[in-house]
Amino acid sequence: MSKKNAFYAQSGGVTSVINATACGLIETARQHKDKIGKVYAGRNGIIGALTEDLIDTSKESTRSIAALRHTPSGAFGSCRYKLKNPEEDRTQYERLIDVFKAHNIGYFFYNGGGDSQDTSHKVSQLSKAMGYPIQCIGIPKTVDNDLPITDCCPGFGSVAKYVAVSIREAGFDVASMAKTSTKVFVMEVMGRHAGWIAAAGGLAAENEGDAPHIILFPEVPFRKTAFIKRVKECVKKYGYCAIVVSEGAAYKDGTFLADAGGVDAFGHKQLGGVAPVVAQMIKDATGYKYHWAVADYLQRAARHIASKTDVDQAYAVGKAAVEFALQGKTAIMPTIARVSNDPYKWKIGQASLVRVANVEKMMPASYITKDGFGITKRCRTYLSPLIKGEDYPPYKNGLPQYVKLKNVPVRKKLNTDFNI
Amino acid sequence: MSKKNAFYAQSGGVTSVINATACGLIETARQHKDKIGKVYAGRNGIIGALTEDLIDTSKESTRSIAALRHTPSGAFGSCRYKLKNPEEDRTQYERLIDVFKAHNIGYFFYNGGGDSQDTSHKVSQLSKAMGYPIQCIGIPKTVDNDLPITDCCPGFGSVAKYVAVSIREAGFDVASMAKTSTKVFVMEVMGRHAGWIAAAGGLAAENEGDAPHIILFPEVPFRKTAFIKRVKECVKKYGYCAIVVSEGAAYKDGTFLADAGGVDAFGHKQLGGVAPVVAQMIKDATGYKYHWAVADYLQRAARHIASKTDVDQAYAVGKAAVEFALQGKTAIMPTIARVSNDPYKWKIGQASLVRVANVEKMMPASYITKDGFGITKRCRTYLSPLIKGEDYPPYKNGLPQYVKLKNVPVRKKLNTDFNI
Repeated sequence: MSKKNAFYAQSGGVTSVINATACGLIETARQHKDKIGKVYAGRNGIIGALTEDLIDTSKESTRSIAALRHTPSGAFGSCRYKLKNPEEDRTQYERLIDVFKAHNIGYFFYNGGGDSQDTSHKVSQLSKAMGYPIQCIGIPKTVDNDLPITDCCPGFGSVAKYVAVSIREAGFDVASMAKTSTKVFVMEVMGRHAGWIAAAGGLAAENEGDAPHIILFPEVPFRKTAFIKRVKECVKKYGYCAIVVSEGAAYKDGTFLADAGGVDAFGHKQLGGVAPVVAQMIKDATGYKYHWAVADYLQRAARHIASKTDVDQAYAVGKAAVEFALQGKTAIMPTIARVSNDPYKWKIGQASLVRVANVEKMMPASYITKDGFGITKRCRTYLSPLIKGEDYPPYKNGLPQYVKLKNVPVRKKLNTDFNI
Repeated sequence: MSKKNAFYAQSGGVTSVINATACGLIETARQHKDKIGKVYAGRNGIIGALTEDLIDTSKESTRSIAALRHTPSGAFGSCRYKLKNPEEDRTQYERLIDVFKAHNIGYFFYNGGGDSQDTSHKVSQLSKAMGYPIQCIGIPKTVDNDLPITDCCPGFGSVAKYVAVSIREAGFDVASMAKTSTKVFVMEVMGRHAGWIAAAGGLAAENEGDAPHIILFPEVPFRKTAFIKRVKECVKKYGYCAIVVSEGAAYKDGTFLADAGGVDAFGHKQLGGVAPVVAQMIKDATGYKYHWAVADYLQRAARHIASKTDVDQAYAVGKAAVEFALQGKTAIMPTIARVSNDPYKWKIGQASLVRVANVEKMMPASYITKDGFGITKRCRTYLSPLIKGEDYPPYKNGLPQYVKLKNVPVRKKLNTDFNI
């Protein structure tokens, strides 16, 4: 049993390119059949490993695996499920090792954000301690762009592109309606803790007067007076005002703007997001007619407008994960290392999982303009290459052709249930 | 002064392809400089004519005009402004004729929905009666797809494509999260009176189980019990439920679902649209975790995912408008006539404005499934060709390159103000 199988799982919120990582990983593993057996995927992430619900990716055709590169979402299912701290409860880790042993799994590839890197790290430590060492490679993925060491996170670039393109397009729309109708447009984007995604909207504003005119970041305490003043200035100067607001925008005391509204007739907290709150606030203060949009999942699922840079990087970290494993490495994560800005060049680097786990990379203060409503040139230099290039999926009948895998289960070998 | 100038204006809500119509019109007029003088555009639609605020499109380069084909929104500004009924007040029409006389305008091209066709019709009648006959050509445009006679309306196909692509992508996303997280996704789309846009979402559901699983149409009175039952069935059967809801979805008594919520702490009517209302209703009845999106202007501005069929047709009606005018026609509107479904073929037809004005084309009952939650095969046959083909704009630095015109004003000749 010298040739070990591999386990791969997708974790947390999915992205439009996490399957490109799966594609890179599986295609590369298939090129090394002499060293790696089968790639088993966890159905619904790590839950698949805990419940011994494994998917045999060898049953998928070459063509289907290739199509993962242009298919958004998590093809094997993802989950929001955090393993307990092993100092409190080792049961889950013991179960993982049992399942890995039963299926001759020697490689653990975990594709996710900060929590997932922490899990990979713990699995690597415990498996060794428990006498069944496994090579653990964390693979970066998060639209939040908040993993440390890596220059950027696969998944982010495509959301960034979606947001920049969308606010540019909506800006053009509002500009043409402003004379007699809508003067203010508010677009809500993801990012509860960090403003990376909101900042990306700023890329659309290449020239004076371009949308967006205002960005509301989670990093900048919301000041209503200054905000309304700026909105009025924009309408006066440009005829309209286009705003990108992060779902995490908050007052100085930490109250989210989204939570600062009222309750509905049933006593529920207001249903909506932050966009309608901001829009209504402007209406009350100025009387301007408004429209608002909440992109929600559309932004992170929008494979149709993915960034080529992002797709390439997502594929590359999947490929690198297998190559690192074949080199005998463990407890590391492939990273994106920026070589140069102009022309943009990058290469694969590596980070020790212990240095990645539980560290959140915040947006530098130097990326936000002094007034708190825009991005600096430095921010633009950082963000701009990440949205570069288009990588359109194939279309049929006007619709993108995304693959649904067969996801054939691996026959169970353990006769024990495990409660998750 | 045998060679007359032309007036062109954009009216009502803009679309991602109305500028393609402007492109077709201006490029075609430029090919007939022996017969048509300059094309003057109304700044902010018909208001530009009333206030003698005309734009000289001859000042724009060939390249800029060509770029209109891939630029969303209204390049000259649009407006929501309806002329008064001439039987009540002829002042506005008299003013139009004065402006047209002053600028030697013999062609009136008005690009809009039902109201605009009505206006074109009235201008044609009155100008004749007032001794300064003008050739009036209405040009169809509306994302609502509700103009009669024409098989479809330029602007609709691209929104349809955006909605179908977006719900497919979001469906993939939710499917991968459903095990431990979001089980229900609700996407709100435009269409206050007719369900054409919501129906287009149904195109994404090509196979059993595909998103969207439920569509809520304005045409079908909302029945909560049946709806919740269906949501539960979908979650049981497919693991999740993806819903497209029209902003016009309403109860039997006509109350919009969007208005059926409560008031906030300040006594405002609920801020949000219908998506959060529907999502919360599901949450209350089932406990399922939900996400929702409101696409709003993003859907009609999304030139990046425009339908090639739509772009081609938008261009063609602009071109045809000029050609009709050169043939001496007036009081007509170019239409899209469907020649065959498979392969899809279409040609330009024409409709008398008197037959177009004030007629709203509703979605046939035969397009909605008996249960009221989906589209029929017949509907699919009608809609499918309209989203076919991609027509990507050029990109630079990861962003679509849309043109902003110079919009040089024409020197005023009348020394009179006009209050609008």
